Amino acid sequence: MKPIITAFERSPDRGRGLARDMRVRWALEEVGQRYDVRLLSFAAMKEPAHRALHPFGQIPTYEEGDLVLFESGAIVLHLAECHAGLLPDDAAARARAISWMFAALNTVEPPILDLQTVLFLERDKSWYEQRLAMVKDAIRKRLGELSHRLGDADWLDGAFSAGDLLMVSVLLRVKTSGLLDEYPNLAAYVARGEARPAYRRAFADQLAVFNAALAGES
Amino acid sequence: MKPIITAFERSPDRGRGLARDMRVRWALEEVGQRYDVRLLSFAAMKEPAHRALHPFGQIPTYEEGDLVLFESGAIVLHLAECHAGLLPDDAAARARAISWMFAALNTVEPPILDLQTVLFLERDKSWYEQRLAMVKDAIRKRLGELSHRLGDADWLDGAFSAGDLLMVSVLLRVKTSGLLDEYPNLAAYVARGEARPAYRRAFADQLAVFNAALAGES
Repeated sequence: MKPIITAFERSPDRGRGLARDMRVRWALEEVGQRYDVRLLSFAAMKEPAHRALHPFGQIPTYEEGDLVLFESGAIVLHLAECHAGLLPDDAAARARAISWMFAALNTVEPPILDLQTVLFLERDKSWYEQRLAMVKDAIRKRLGELSHRLGDADWLDGAFSAGDLLMVSVLLRVKTSGLLDEYPNLAAYVARGEARPAYRRAFADQLAVFNAALAGES
Repeated sequence: MKPIITAFERSPDRGRGLARDMRVRWALEEVGQRYDVRLLSFAAMKEPAHRALHPFGQIPTYEEGDLVLFESGAIVLHLAECHAGLLPDDAAARARAISWMFAALNTVEPPILDLQTVLFLERDKSWYEQRLAMVKDAIRKRLGELSHRLGDADWLDGAFSAGDLLMVSVLLRVKTSGLLDEYPNLAAYVARGEARPAYRRAFADQLAVFNAALAGES
C-alpha cells in the first residue's frame, strides 16, 4: 500500500529542503518505499479537513490505509520500525539511535526554532541584535556539545540511522547562518547526509514541487 | 535488573516536579519498575564522566546494565516498549500514541521552553514585557489547538498512554503562568494526570530529594 504524505503547495523556504516533509521524504527514500504527496495551500492546512489529520494544522501528515500519523519524528520512527535500513537490529543500539532522534528534536532543534523566530518575527524590533546574539550563543552551546561527541566519526553512533537523519535535518536549518561552519566536523557530517542518494532524491522531489508552483505564477 | 537514573541533587524548580527526571520516574512507576537514582550536582553534570553518558550534560540518564540512554522522551519510549501499560497493543493505536509523544516534545514544548527563557534570562531586559506577551500568544496558539482536539475526552487517543504522560508533563510547566486555566479541559486533563497513583508516587520521591537537600543546609 502506497502511503500518502502532505507537503506545502508552496514551501516558505522556496525549495531549500527545510520544510518538515523533507525529513519524511528522506526516510521514505532510505527505506525504498514509494509514496504519493498531497499538496496543501496555507489556507487548506487550517481547514477542519486537514486538522482532523493534524491537530496543529501543519505538514507533514502520513496516511497508510486507515492509519493517520502526524509529527515528522513519529513518522520517521514508524517507517524505521516497519522497514529495514534506519535503525540497527541490536536492541541496545536501536534504543540509542532513538535517543539521538529525540535529542535532535527536543534538545538541538528548540534553540534553532528560536533563531527562526528572531529572524522572521523580531527583525523590526528594538531588541533584534541583542536577542540574535543571545540565541546564536544558545545554539553554539548545543553545537559545541554535539561536535565534541561526534568527534571524527562519520555518524553519531555506528552506522547511519534515523537519529542521524533527524539530526542532519535539524542542523541544515542553521547552514545559511554560518554557525555550522564554526564546527567543521558538524559541517562535514551534514554534507555526508546531503550526499546520500536517498537525500538527493528527496531533495529533488521537494524542489520540483516548488518549481512547479513558481511556473504556475502569472 | 534495577535501572539507574540520574537527577538533580538540588532541582532548580525546588521540588515542583518540573525537572525532566520526573517524566522518567512517572513512567517507571506506571510500569511498576523499581529503580535507583544517582544525584548530581550542577558541577558534576558538566564533568566528562557524566558527559560520557549524556552528551549535553543534562539529566536524566538511564542505565540498564550496559545500555545507556539519554533524552527523557527516548527513555519513556524504551520503558513503554519493554513493559506493558504505556502503549496500546494495537499497532496503529501504538503509532498514534507515539505521534503524541513527539507532539508534546517537538510542537508543544518549544514555545513553553521559550517562556522559561523570557522569565529567567530576559526579566531585566528592556523588551521583557513585549517578548513575554509574544511568547504567551505562541503558547496560547498551541494550547487552543490541543484543547480543541482533546474536547471532552479523558486522554488524547483512547486509554492513557506515554503520549499523555509526556503531554501532561509539558503542560505542567505552564501551570503557574495561569495560561492553562484559560483552557478548562486542558487544566482538567493535567489534573487527571497528576491524580494518577504512579504520578503521585513519582512526585513524592522527587520532592523527598529536594527536601533532603534543604535539610542538609546549614
